[in-house]
Amino acid sequence: MKTPGAIPASNSVSARHEGPARLIVNLAALAGNYCTLQNLSPAAETGAVVKADAYGLDAGHITRTLAHAGCRTFFTATPAEGAAVRAALNGTEARIFVLNGYWPHSARLYREAGLTPVINALDELAAFSAGGGGACGLHIDTGLNRLGLSETDAASLLPGEGLLANCQLALVMSHLACADEPGREMNARQRARFIAVSARFGDVTRSLANTGGVLLGPDYHFDLTRPGIGLYGVNPATEAPEPFTPVLHVDAPLLQVRSVKDGETVGYGARWQADGQRTIAIAGIGYADGLMRSARQGGYARLGEAAVPIVGAVSMDLTALDVTGHEALAAETARVQFYGADLGPVAGAAGTIGYELLTRLGGRLERRYEGGV
Amino acid sequence: MKTPGAIPASNSVSARHEGPARLIVNLAALAGNYCTLQNLSPAAETGAVVKADAYGLDAGHITRTLAHAGCRTFFTATPAEGAAVRAALNGTEARIFVLNGYWPHSARLYREAGLTPVINALDELAAFSAGGGGACGLHIDTGLNRLGLSETDAASLLPGEGLLANCQLALVMSHLACADEPGREMNARQRARFIAVSARFGDVTRSLANTGGVLLGPDYHFDLTRPGIGLYGVNPATEAPEPFTPVLHVDAPLLQVRSVKDGETVGYGARWQADGQRTIAIAGIGYADGLMRSARQGGYARLGEAAVPIVGAVSMDLTALDVTGHEALAAETARVQFYGADLGPVAGAAGTIGYELLTRLGGRLERRYEGGV
Repeated sequence: MKTPGAIPASNSVSARHEGPARLIVNLAALAGNYCTLQNLSPAAETGAVVKADAYGLDAGHITRTLAHAGCRTFFTATPAEGAAVRAALNGTEARIFVLNGYWPHSARLYREAGLTPVINALDELAAFSAGGGGACGLHIDTGLNRLGLSETDAASLLPGEGLLANCQLALVMSHLACADEPGREMNARQRARFIAVSARFGDVTRSLANTGGVLLGPDYHFDLTRPGIGLYGVNPATEAPEPFTPVLHVDAPLLQVRSVKDGETVGYGARWQADGQRTIAIAGIGYADGLMRSARQGGYARLGEAAVPIVGAVSMDLTALDVTGHEALAAETARVQFYGADLGPVAGAAGTIGYELLTRLGGRLERRYEGGV
Repeated sequence: MKTPGAIPASNSVSARHEGPARLIVNLAALAGNYCTLQNLSPAAETGAVVKADAYGLDAGHITRTLAHAGCRTFFTATPAEGAAVRAALNGTEARIFVLNGYWPHSARLYREAGLTPVINALDELAAFSAGGGGACGLHIDTGLNRLGLSETDAASLLPGEGLLANCQLALVMSHLACADEPGREMNARQRARFIAVSARFGDVTRSLANTGGVLLGPDYHFDLTRPGIGLYGVNPATEAPEPFTPVLHVDAPLLQVRSVKDGETVGYGARWQADGQRTIAIAGIGYADGLMRSARQGGYARLGEAAVPIVGAVSMDLTALDVTGHEALAAETARVQFYGADLGPVAGAAGTIGYELLTRLGGRLERRYEGGV
């Protein structure tokens, strides 16, 4: 492009931004986090949770990278996700568990993609058995009260008999409610219940730990761990030291830089008012790309090394940033970054958790995968 | 599938849910809302804002439906979105404006897809002119302080001269900050500024009104309106009567129904505690599908005609609902609905607006388009 000539000072603009907002995923960091998790629980196998399109980062790229790093057990929520992971594996042998259970109407999908359902209830087990049975997992509820067999349900089962007569138990698992809060008594209670209930299933692979569970220590590791958020570089326990490497950041163009006079307002609702003359940069990214509208309180972007606060309401495609004092940098770099090592605290300031920020990354973001194999 | 036989009462489950969470879009309602908007501003042409993948509903289906309803002017945020809309039009002649301006690195995309940039700044205009010029719009900022030429910038321009020498002005527009609040004085102030500044560009198509602007009345309609949210069935002015028909709802399977005893907790963090024995249904939908994590306060689903509250933290793939007193209905219907006519109030309860709920609808939702042409 031609660099524009003299521009009236009233409305200095950058048209040098080189394209749309992007999500940049560092696959080498992902592989590193897998190794970190494996090293934190050396006596257990480290699986990987790649549900929700690998927390929004693309199940294909994530699965291939993790398989190359040695991962051989994957967890999805639905059978359709499981089939996508199987396709991504491209022949590499691996077990794929479907956490949300056995869905009879999708029986063909489980069979054709070689998916192992994690059975959550007795009538689900009956339907699976009636459909031919085979390898499955059992999910025991130990207090989360979400999915899973109750202790009473589990007590009605015996390997090789009744509803389990034509099932091969590949896994007995439960899920922690408070793994990200090491101080909660609930963790030890769930662990004790898990040990007691799983005992009746004999020498079967046992799994209790998500990322938080891995960080709780060896008592929680059992045979197979199921980290998700740690793989993606986010520490679920906000007060612990940071064992993981950031995997992603978002990078957006500055579409315009403008001077706003003392007392003028910015954005929808005209609720943000300039206290003195300010320089406002408009970034080409909004809540449709995954920024939280609630990020207007305490949210910021990074302009080089500087944190530049979000001002006014985040809109669907645009976000206003106060770049006062950084005008030269704004004109020069023409792009800003969101998320990164600060993803957890940024989520907290927006009233949510890193998990939600990840899964909200919008389809409009151009995606770049770096450091892949 | 085989219906399972006798199930221990401790853990009654529905495996009859017939598949994953779905987004159902009623294209006939969309076309009806377009007509409603056209009837509300009969002297103006009614355009359509289809940016952000038509607010998350799929720009392809939405564009084709609106074109069939007579729409001939579309607005996107980015050139890539504009190219997708051009493809969806499949030869139907229509003008596509790119609101986020002229991006020189995408010059070919504008040319090949016949996109008309809405120029927001003088250096953008210089770059557009240097790239060959042609048809463009001008965005005048009248107080939103987001994108747009300042009044000073605009005063430096004259049609057919200088930076506009090789540009054909297809549109002069501005954007309202408070259109959803009819009582705000800001609306009249922006309108007066728009009239004053646009006058210097002569007999050019003028546009000021988004959906809220259409509802503000004829003074705000000018030549072309640009509704978005109203097309998708949401009234931006929460205190006004409802002129629009709901366009979408979300429908999710109940994966499991369980009894929870007095004092037991449900969900992550173990923060929701049952006050007496409750029946909890676990729906196969979560924040990765677009539910707001913040919906745990005041959020609910519809089970038939009953509103069943969300309990505990919404998780990534699962949401717990209190269906106490509706056990038979839960077992029978095995699915629940979210959103619909209540989308606006539901968004408000979650601390946001309908726009954000729409654009957050997740890629994992199976999509059904009904009432199409």
